[in-house]
Amino acid sequence: MPLSHIRVVLVETSHPGNIGAVARAMKNMRLHNLYLVNPRIYPSAEATARASGADDVLAATRVCASVDEALAGCSMVFGASARLRTISWPQLSPRECAGLILAGNSQAPLALLIGREHSGLTNDELERCNYLVHIPSNPEFSSLNIAAAVQILAYEIFLAHLQQQAPVQQERNLDELATADELELLYAHMHQALIDIEFLDPANPRQLMRRLRRLFNRAHLEKMELNILRGIFAAAQCKDKF
Amino acid sequence: MPLSHIRVVLVETSHPGNIGAVARAMKNMRLHNLYLVNPRIYPSAEATARASGADDVLAATRVCASVDEALAGCSMVFGASARLRTISWPQLSPRECAGLILAGNSQAPLALLIGREHSGLTNDELERCNYLVHIPSNPEFSSLNIAAAVQILAYEIFLAHLQQQAPVQQERNLDELATADELELLYAHMHQALIDIEFLDPANPRQLMRRLRRLFNRAHLEKMELNILRGIFAAAQCKDKF
Repeated sequence: MPLSHIRVVLVETSHPGNIGAVARAMKNMRLHNLYLVNPRIYPSAEATARASGADDVLAATRVCASVDEALAGCSMVFGASARLRTISWPQLSPRECAGLILAGNSQAPLALLIGREHSGLTNDELERCNYLVHIPSNPEFSSLNIAAAVQILAYEIFLAHLQQQAPVQQERNLDELATADELELLYAHMHQALIDIEFLDPANPRQLMRRLRRLFNRAHLEKMELNILRGIFAAAQCKDKF
Repeated sequence: MPLSHIRVVLVETSHPGNIGAVARAMKNMRLHNLYLVNPRIYPSAEATARASGADDVLAATRVCASVDEALAGCSMVFGASARLRTISWPQLSPRECAGLILAGNSQAPLALLIGREHSGLTNDELERCNYLVHIPSNPEFSSLNIAAAVQILAYEIFLAHLQQQAPVQQERNLDELATADELELLYAHMHQALIDIEFLDPANPRQLMRRLRRLFNRAHLEKMELNILRGIFAAAQCKDKF
């Protein structure tokens, strides 16, 4: 999902300075699509001052008459709200939200829906969201400024984007990892070898194979490592036959 | 390192609104010690308004006449600066910085040193820092508002703090992990067993032991898993003797 597919939607923002600060936070993290639903004051010199150079984001901002209009065409909506009134709603951390957004390959835009300064999102608006995003914070002082909240969400999205753009920097090449079916063949071979060398008693297997699966699954074996392990078990079996 | 040991130091801040926004960002993430070096305007109604309830942080703020005074007693200083003039200086991401801060057990405070809105930190100030912290951002618009920068740093510190406070939620108990010396004994045993079963030719060992070390080091073996592996190698060796 390219960053250009991400839309930030501010609902009924009271302070124009916050709109400018959101524009700056977005541009710092390469987000550019800002939608305003019924802002109290906009455009405003204070918004421009606080945007501090993110004039292009402000200039391209779309002012909408309703949340419906701002979310039109969006495939997924992530709602940021300090108040978790609907605890049964699917809830994400900012990092999980960023991972989910970047992993998507829809051609439709996605929206981050940001509530009012003092009252957040209404229940109707929360129910428009596929997920709620909760920013971990001091339980005794949990309400972040809306530009600060956008800054954290945009930062996590930008980090996830950088990670996605830099596959060559990944420690290991995914092509070299063993596949699930190769792993199953390894475990079958391992099981037989452990019986052959009389380490595993089929009549009393205990948790042995489960523990070994847990260990090797955790290690995300490469094909070459898997082949080494199979070689070791084959050699142990082979010696057993003499 | 408890959060109460962390000091945020703002150098020659021009806009009092930013001081208030920093106080709010700090309190949202449970940081409380704010030091101001020669602020242009302080106290200020604008700072109080933007603090939006973080009045206790503002009330406890210490105004200092120099960076030296603000850093007095600090064991480590982390400088935030968009401009990386001294590329040879040790540089951290916000997440690395948070990890390093929380891992410390010094009784002395630590400082996050935040530069001026338009010109950051001077070279002299940068050289006072043990580490520089660089927030990943749009290379074409990289300068974050100082309160936004503090928000991201404080957020990463708070996440690291939550993780540290919740050891029961960790997937695995560190006490159960094999120690470095136990691992060395495992590798020595493994090496001998692979020779005994004629899988490893000591005259031509290739990269075999290095690859196996890489695999098992990556898996962070538990003591019980290490014992299972030693049991397997002992059984393979044992069969070899008949």
